Amino acid sequence: MNRRLYAIILAGGSGARFWPASRERFPKPLLHVAGEETLIRQTVRRALKVVPAQNVYVVTNTFQAETIKLQLSNWQSELAGNVVLEPEGRNTAPAIGLAALRVLRRDAGATMLVLPSDHVITGDGKFKQAVSFGSRLARQGALVTFGIRPTGPETGYGYIQPDRRSPLQTSGTLAGYKVRRFVEKPDLKKARRLLKSGGYLWNSGMFVWRADSLVEELALHQPALLKSLRTIDKMVESGEPADRFHKRYKRLKAVSIDDGLMVRSTRAAVIPVEFSWLDVGSWGNLETLLPQDQRGNVKIGNIVDIDSRNSFFFATKRLVGSVGLSDMVVVDTPDATLVCPKSRAQDVKVLVRILRRRGAPEYLEHTKVDRPWGSYTVLEEGKGYKVKRISVLPGRRLSLQMHDRRSEHWVVIVGTARVTREETVYELGPGESTEIPRQTRHRLGNPGPLPLEIIEVQYGDYVGEDDIVRYQDDDRLVTS
Amino acid sequence: MNRRLYAIILAGGSGARFWPASRERFPKPLLHVAGEETLIRQTVRRALKVVPAQNVYVVTNTFQAETIKLQLSNWQSELAGNVVLEPEGRNTAPAIGLAALRVLRRDAGATMLVLPSDHVITGDGKFKQAVSFGSRLARQGALVTFGIRPTGPETGYGYIQPDRRSPLQTSGTLAGYKVRRFVEKPDLKKARRLLKSGGYLWNSGMFVWRADSLVEELALHQPALLKSLRTIDKMVESGEPADRFHKRYKRLKAVSIDDGLMVRSTRAAVIPVEFSWLDVGSWGNLETLLPQDQRGNVKIGNIVDIDSRNSFFFATKRLVGSVGLSDMVVVDTPDATLVCPKSRAQDVKVLVRILRRRGAPEYLEHTKVDRPWGSYTVLEEGKGYKVKRISVLPGRRLSLQMHDRRSEHWVVIVGTARVTREETVYELGPGESTEIPRQTRHRLGNPGPLPLEIIEVQYGDYVGEDDIVRYQDDDRLVTS
Repeated sequence: MNRRLYAIILAGGSGARFWPASRERFPKPLLHVAGEETLIRQTVRRALKVVPAQNVYVVTNTFQAETIKLQLSNWQSELAGNVVLEPEGRNTAPAIGLAALRVLRRDAGATMLVLPSDHVITGDGKFKQAVSFGSRLARQGALVTFGIRPTGPETGYGYIQPDRRSPLQTSGTLAGYKVRRFVEKPDLKKARRLLKSGGYLWNSGMFVWRADSLVEELALHQPALLKSLRTIDKMVESGEPADRFHKRYKRLKAVSIDDGLMVRSTRAAVIPVEFSWLDVGSWGNLETLLPQDQRGNVKIGNIVDIDSRNSFFFATKRLVGSVGLSDMVVVDTPDATLVCPKSRAQDVKVLVRILRRRGAPEYLEHTKVDRPWGSYTVLEEGKGYKVKRISVLPGRRLSLQMHDRRSEHWVVIVGTARVTREETVYELGPGESTEIPRQTRHRLGNPGPLPLEIIEVQYGDYVGEDDIVRYQDDDRLVTS
Repeated sequence: MNRRLYAIILAGGSGARFWPASRERFPKPLLHVAGEETLIRQTVRRALKVVPAQNVYVVTNTFQAETIKLQLSNWQSELAGNVVLEPEGRNTAPAIGLAALRVLRRDAGATMLVLPSDHVITGDGKFKQAVSFGSRLARQGALVTFGIRPTGPETGYGYIQPDRRSPLQTSGTLAGYKVRRFVEKPDLKKARRLLKSGGYLWNSGMFVWRADSLVEELALHQPALLKSLRTIDKMVESGEPADRFHKRYKRLKAVSIDDGLMVRSTRAAVIPVEFSWLDVGSWGNLETLLPQDQRGNVKIGNIVDIDSRNSFFFATKRLVGSVGLSDMVVVDTPDATLVCPKSRAQDVKVLVRILRRRGAPEYLEHTKVDRPWGSYTVLEEGKGYKVKRISVLPGRRLSLQMHDRRSEHWVVIVGTARVTREETVYELGPGESTEIPRQTRHRLGNPGPLPLEIIEVQYGDYVGEDDIVRYQDDDRLVTS
């Protein structure tokens, strides 16, 4: 465990290619694509193998910060101050640069390990060895990338040619090389040639370097960007209002750390790694992570299939029936279904662009929405009403609130509800119900040791989530 | 309008090939595949163009009779006695034979027009001409089939070769011929040859004949079947308990009128018809009925598609997103989705067989269930609770009932509810709610001139539909 090593986890980006499992407000780091835990939690656990918890930083954008923070709640005490907010995504160079300045304020001799949150890695031991060896190279001033041995002619990754004439350093079976050449994402023909030549590695997007080395190189190759980032960092440090530095951040050039820095730097080095690695890029490449049947199908959920081959089925609850599909992706969620050939999985992001333009609710969020106190699921919404199932965690409560234009009817299904209605407080058990008239101050809490589940029927001429006045909220500062 | 002509509409069969739009309790005649009305109602309207309402008979099975009768409710006074019940489907020969005996009891000189309820026909004038001409041939003793000019090498239909040397009779552009040969459903190679020869027609499955001619031919070619049918008809006539003739009916040989009779009879005749006809057989052949986009896609519902071709999309409510599909069928309903290539659309019935074997609820019925008083839609069911939206038609009411193991909570969304709870009767308006404890006699009615909509939350250790005691029901006799 290296106390001067800091893990910077990149958790911005919407992961539009994973629609309908991902949504604008439920981004890719929140997906469970492999294993029990979400990608962001897997990434934090990986970081915790090599750095202490208080050295883990998460970079995310304001829009997704709340859901990301919910994911980190069990590390809350250590990570509370370590969320770096991008007002909006400007690609990786500004995000990493801002994190570097933040870390340098705390430790002038800091080394940074940069980890995207959409990688699935198996082989903890090999991972720790690679990070430890990379940190040693970094301490000598190198900007170190981790290179993956290609297993196919992938067009979705950049390629790196190491200068294999003599390694910079070795350790056991690991060696670090100067980078001879970075190759941008190639077309298929070129990818085949690179693969065949045997001399190239995939660029994993994971890096390790001294924070001051990074800043020196930014000063050389991206001086304008660095200057803006320094100004923004000072504004954040001095607690200036968010909207001021937000405005500045949005004006930054959107550039990746690869294009903006690595390809230009003479200090770039690469370590071919030995752990198994997968970039969770689209529905088209997940099958290697998941159990397949004899015909090469992955079937998750309530799937009834006849005769399909090499297809990927994912259903959260509803039944999916299929006959004779080949190399297809079928993803079913409570409010939306996707059907597309694996070969077109990259183009799901185009579909999402169309949905965003239309203002489709299926673009923005799931019918189930997580909250600090639990979650709610919209069962149906129609003209003048909305029906929700609400789950409240033991000991938690929603804000003290009021709605102008809707009444609410609650029926307890499981657990005990503590209801506040104006000055009255009372408890309801399973099968009991109550009514909250509109323009009535109220609060729902779970005083019990088990989860509380209620069905809420809202009635009114307007049932939007924004018809709410909050008087007190355990989970945020009251701003009104 | 011929007062001695009787239309026999065949409305048995589940239409498993149309799952998930069709269900065991929501069979094919209830689908809206073309036009505003269901197939069964389109068929009744077609029959009403050529026979008076009291001459329309509908053959269906006991399991589907209730939903079929709901479809016929606006012709209730005329059709009330005209539903012929098959205890279960034994193919067309028993069904048509039983209808013939029923009609003969009423009119010894009856002519029968047999109409399947899964045909879409355009051209009312041509249809009436063909029926009128067919009835003339029938009066002379012929068993007349209507032949369709083939438009492709279809393998799903039988073929008929007319004896074109001399017509039996002509009328304007119509001519009737003796049948030279019936050809069973051919394979693709044979279908191509039949199409190329130019001398064959598709067997539409529509017939016209004198009821006594049919019975004479049954006596010749299916004497055992006829004998059983006569016994059953007598049992029905004398009002014997249903289970007695049910048992007999189930033992009948399942045989089609084509194989059992037409291919054997020397009295078979065929009229090549001039109206446009489509047998609604599977998802794979519906595109001709529906508007297509420039790339040959049919898109019904909330579909967002990129680059698909010749595909069929049908969604009832949820969003379906698709990219780059070719010749595919995607059908989405609230609780189940089907994805299959058009070429495999026939095999959807195999999928349904699997679902039935598993006892999957998605095989049996939709989340929305029609009732004489309106309908209900299950929004969610979980351990210990169920949430429904209930719609009650103006002036209608549910049965006076009681549940042993669940309480019910009602919130009115639209309209006025008249609630009976034991001895109390009260009314609720929009936004008002009430609770019905378990083991409490209650009734929900709609006294108003507009539909009533409520949300019902059921709570109890068992929330199955069969936990109900009915004391009085406007829509059926009380049997308890």
